[in-house]
Amino acid sequence: MNDLLGQPLHVINIGIASFSEPIRAAGAGVTHLDWAPPAQGDRALGDSLARLMRHSEVEQANEQAFAAYGAASPVLEGVGIARDCLPGMQHGLILHAGPPITWERMCGPMQGAIVGALLYEGWAADAADARSMAAAGDIGFAPCHHHNAVGPMAGIVSPSMPVWIVRNAQGGNVGFSNMNEGLGKVLRFGANGPEVIERLHWMRRVLTPVLQAGLKVLGPLELKPLIAQALHMGDEVHNRNAAASGLLLKKLVPALLASGAPTADIAAVAGFIAGNDHFFLNVSMAACKAMLDAAADIRGSSMVTAMCRNGVDFAIRLSGTGQQWFTAPAPVVNGLYFPGYSIADAAPDLGDSAITETAGLGGFAMAAAPAIVKFVGGTTQDAVANTMAMTHVTLGRNSSFTLPALDFGGTPAGIDARKVVDTGILPIINTGIAHRKAGIGQIGAGVTRAPLACFTQAIAALARQVSV
Amino acid sequence: MNDLLGQPLHVINIGIASFSEPIRAAGAGVTHLDWAPPAQGDRALGDSLARLMRHSEVEQANEQAFAAYGAASPVLEGVGIARDCLPGMQHGLILHAGPPITWERMCGPMQGAIVGALLYEGWAADAADARSMAAAGDIGFAPCHHHNAVGPMAGIVSPSMPVWIVRNAQGGNVGFSNMNEGLGKVLRFGANGPEVIERLHWMRRVLTPVLQAGLKVLGPLELKPLIAQALHMGDEVHNRNAAASGLLLKKLVPALLASGAPTADIAAVAGFIAGNDHFFLNVSMAACKAMLDAAADIRGSSMVTAMCRNGVDFAIRLSGTGQQWFTAPAPVVNGLYFPGYSIADAAPDLGDSAITETAGLGGFAMAAAPAIVKFVGGTTQDAVANTMAMTHVTLGRNSSFTLPALDFGGTPAGIDARKVVDTGILPIINTGIAHRKAGIGQIGAGVTRAPLACFTQAIAALARQVSV
Repeated sequence: MNDLLGQPLHVINIGIASFSEPIRAAGAGVTHLDWAPPAQGDRALGDSLARLMRHSEVEQANEQAFAAYGAASPVLEGVGIARDCLPGMQHGLILHAGPPITWERMCGPMQGAIVGALLYEGWAADAADARSMAAAGDIGFAPCHHHNAVGPMAGIVSPSMPVWIVRNAQGGNVGFSNMNEGLGKVLRFGANGPEVIERLHWMRRVLTPVLQAGLKVLGPLELKPLIAQALHMGDEVHNRNAAASGLLLKKLVPALLASGAPTADIAAVAGFIAGNDHFFLNVSMAACKAMLDAAADIRGSSMVTAMCRNGVDFAIRLSGTGQQWFTAPAPVVNGLYFPGYSIADAAPDLGDSAITETAGLGGFAMAAAPAIVKFVGGTTQDAVANTMAMTHVTLGRNSSFTLPALDFGGTPAGIDARKVVDTGILPIINTGIAHRKAGIGQIGAGVTRAPLACFTQAIAALARQVSV
Repeated sequence: MNDLLGQPLHVINIGIASFSEPIRAAGAGVTHLDWAPPAQGDRALGDSLARLMRHSEVEQANEQAFAAYGAASPVLEGVGIARDCLPGMQHGLILHAGPPITWERMCGPMQGAIVGALLYEGWAADAADARSMAAAGDIGFAPCHHHNAVGPMAGIVSPSMPVWIVRNAQGGNVGFSNMNEGLGKVLRFGANGPEVIERLHWMRRVLTPVLQAGLKVLGPLELKPLIAQALHMGDEVHNRNAAASGLLLKKLVPALLASGAPTADIAAVAGFIAGNDHFFLNVSMAACKAMLDAAADIRGSSMVTAMCRNGVDFAIRLSGTGQQWFTAPAPVVNGLYFPGYSIADAAPDLGDSAITETAGLGGFAMAAAPAIVKFVGGTTQDAVANTMAMTHVTLGRNSSFTLPALDFGGTPAGIDARKVVDTGILPIINTGIAHRKAGIGQIGAGVTRAPLACFTQAIAALARQVSV
């Protein structure tokens, strides 16, 4: 012991990194160990977590949920009108992204998009009228997720809007999404001017029947191979869909030309798709929804089946706790802002598009798309590191979605809420950033994290469900 | 000295690796140093090389050549008929891949493709007639390169065939290539049956006018940004052109639909392009030819401006030695063979497509396309290593062609024949493998190397040109 005290001091510092500094300043060696107490040091939660960590019921449920997700085969079946397709869709109802929220609490872009939807539907005469109706409670609001759908950013779906129909050929469940309008002034960022409404009408009047005719010729289109191919072409099918949109167009064009649709309409549709590298995003989201719903409602499973944001709240669902939402304030994204904008202008994180990360794509497949981290100042190594970090909080790898930069290893998939709480490693999400005021549109893009509080609540709820 | 001899033996072995084995077997340590004498130990050549290595005239000439290559801006201008576009093209003349060769020495696929071309042109009544004409000297043969053109595999261009026209907007020089027929039974692998000839007629009768109409609407298409985008999408634009073909189609489709061409013809053309992931290869080759010709004929430059093969001989050109070819036997490719075939069935390396490697693409950009090395049993790391190895034999990096796996560093480009001879590192080439008999087609794919003997001859010739 006396010998030990006579030796030069070398400290192992666990936890708070700043404690290393004074020791180092005093001339001693320090080895810092990055660690935080599980469950943020919450003792009751720590007990719940410990009980769930190796619980055989949870393990079996997770195995079953992950297998159902892995076996799911999303197939693009067609395009329909929301009121005809979405379960429970009705006159006077507007669907939105994220968990439930009242008109008063909604962020600017979501309110703006709802105003646009009321104008598009012809329910309101003008924007002021639309706002009065919404505030008066004349309009019903519900999450897209409550109607088997997902929508990017504001995620507004009104009864007359066209929707993608994606069926899980394995389980029979169906996922829906609205259609992508392109960039600039668009409804999903809260814009609602005449050109936005006219584009929505064109999408129903021209885009929808032309796509219907083309998809009829093409037949059901398997989406997993198409997404897998896009992952080998630099997409992660959330913030980057350039390859996937091109692959879809390549499939569609010969079918459209054989469909008998008017040539001028085909030309307009082909031009619209060719001019929008995000066109596939909504198809990707519907496919992810279909894959994850296959894993839903398995008692005891801690697998995350949805992550979404309404611009105010972030929320997740677990398989084992079914339709219940676990919410926390949505973070503001510290990303790269377009010239003239800063984080002060940003709406908090918004949209159902984190369904892609939930399915092992988007930020989880970042290694496929190093251009995305480069855009926000990172390197190719950062992209790989982001994907690898997600292996610590997931149930396995999806062998259908391989990543060239990982020597064709599968993408980490099936977020295990237990592992998130245990490690403190938060699911990474690639996202666009909307201006907090309606109608200004996208002002940046970046990488964000799901808030831990969603996962701690989910773990507490799951622990109450599972027997000791 | 006595002390040294008393110590345990540890040997540094330089050069021949097998000399290490008996030493290791006897229990001593060996450190092997990979080394070979420059210029294969040829003293006169070594003297020439030493003189050229730091010669200011060569350095300046290379700087100029590399800058001209780097500044070149290949633009797809249109599609024409060979006899109307190619300088010196005339009735009775057939162009082929690689350096000059007589009918008697040609490999099977090249002879087969020439028979097909004579049938397509209507110069011969049947295959036997065509062979007699060719053997009797009734037909003139010349390399594509002698007429500013390039062609993959057999590379046959006859006067009535359509060709891509790619102009270097910077220097004004023009590169041409024939058009890609797809896979299976095709002329470039020596097939010449009725379906091959009928497809060639369709390409002239339907594909050509439809593309002409579409390109007229589209206007000149800059190819460097398109190739750069494809490199970010898993292509190296030699053996993998899936992304580039899709990007070209995406540009073309709206233009075709606005062109007024008959819808049925547009449908046939869109289907043809959508069904052939190699469609862009020939455009890529013409673009590379246009970029490299910009660097040609600069006195003293050791930069390689062409590498090509006719299935018998491999040949290169240097900028400083102009039109002169330096040839060596074409290697047989030790690649991955399709079931039922082996290296015994293979024709030696064939085609002008190594123009892509000469331009810093193909095997030099392998890091962009790890799927290619995976196909032949390698890893993503091997793909990166292949690209990095080429930095030792090139004049610089092409900042227009960045590679995500190298953290968006440029592809190594501008092969310096001096460095090849000095290091013994041979330029890597991605290639398809043709059956040695005409008409059987592709039987595999693989990675091969340019033969050293081409470079040693080129260096000897350049040394004679450059003053002491």
